[in-house]
Amino acid sequence: MSNPGYLTDKDRLLARMNRIEGQVRGIGRMIDEETYCIDVLTQVSAAIAALKGVAVELVDDHVRHCVVDAPAEELDEKLSEAVAAIARLTRS
Amino acid sequence: MSNPGYLTDKDRLLARMNRIEGQVRGIGRMIDEETYCIDVLTQVSAAIAALKGVAVELVDDHVRHCVVDAPAEELDEKLSEAVAAIARLTRS
Amino acid sequence: MSNPGYLTDKDRLLARMNRIEGQVRGIGRMIDEETYCIDVLTQVSAAIAALKGVAVELVDDHVRHCVVDAPAEELDEKLSEAVAAIARLTRS
Amino acid sequence: MSNPGYLTDKDRLLARMNRIEGQVRGIGRMIDEETYCIDVLTQVSAAIAALKGVAVELVDDHVRHCVVDAPAEELDEKLSEAVAAIARLTRS
Repeated sequence: MSNPGYLTDKDRLLARMNRIEGQVRGIGRMIDEETYCIDVLTQVSAAIAALKGVAVELVDDHVRHCVVDAPAEELDEKLSEAVAAIARLTRS
Repeated sequence: MSNPGYLTDKDRLLARMNRIEGQVRGIGRMIDEETYCIDVLTQVSAAIAALKGVAVELVDDHVRHCVVDAPAEELDEKLSEAVAAIARLTRS
Repeated sequence: MSNPGYLTDKDRLLARMNRIEGQVRGIGRMIDEETYCIDVLTQVSAAIAALKGVAVELVDDHVRHCVVDAPAEELDEKLSEAVAAIARLTRS
Repeated sequence: MSNPGYLTDKDRLLARMNRIEGQVRGIGRMIDEETYCIDVLTQVSAAIAALKGVAVELVDDHVRHCVVDAPAEELDEKLSEAVAAIARLTRS
């Protein structure tokens, strides 16, 4: 698909993913250096919250572009797909 | 601290963190390549679930070692700290 | 508002809320009878999962009706509102 | 079991469960009266957060009493049980 709808914020999303990748690498390093578990847990919770932030932004872009711009005959399928993704996110 | 309590599973935890780092880098790549948002969201949900798995393992190691082995006079503080970390995780 | 969009499933949603109310009352009873904490916790997790199920259904109804049927000039606001609700849910 | 360990806070926990039961009944009423979905969703998120608060308190009581006071030969089983409950909560 040539235009999945999140081009506008692509650079910002990529910067956020880079930061999260750094957080995750940092958690690995903390485990390797045997940092106190509670401090590692705090970082894991922060990385989860950061990924949820990205997920919400992807949902925003998706409904705002793919769903709203969908041809009438695809709308129902697009909506079901979006709601299923939100359900997976809610339970992840 | 020389023995934070998760030495037993250190290699396995490190392998899991490596895999999660790969997942997160893959999500960045998907965004860069403008993969369909729903597919990106599915991977974000999977990475969140994987991080929660690591977090639960850290909690397990922590209560099983640091908390149980804590000197009596530190036990109360250790427990408060562990419960606060679980609360942060639950809300992350 | 006379038609918030979830009329179709109203009876089913009400039945689910009744069941959840019963679950929550049951948890209160378990605490009153000093049931083993782990068993109470299991019921609390089940009630949370049930509420998330209702929330996802409300999101589904909302996007499928209120958002899709919104007049063009209200669409942006409707979408922002829906995404904000999804964000709150994701972090609740 | 005559002393599951959360007697100290029993009245407070019961008061919280009563409040949550009222919240859940209120959500049912909102659905019945066809209140705007976003407002219902906000209340569902609040009820989920309140249940998570109770869950964290139950975990606190549990580790502080049942786990810490467990006879040495039951400790391992008690810990596994507590961590499994935390895992269920984290994923609920």
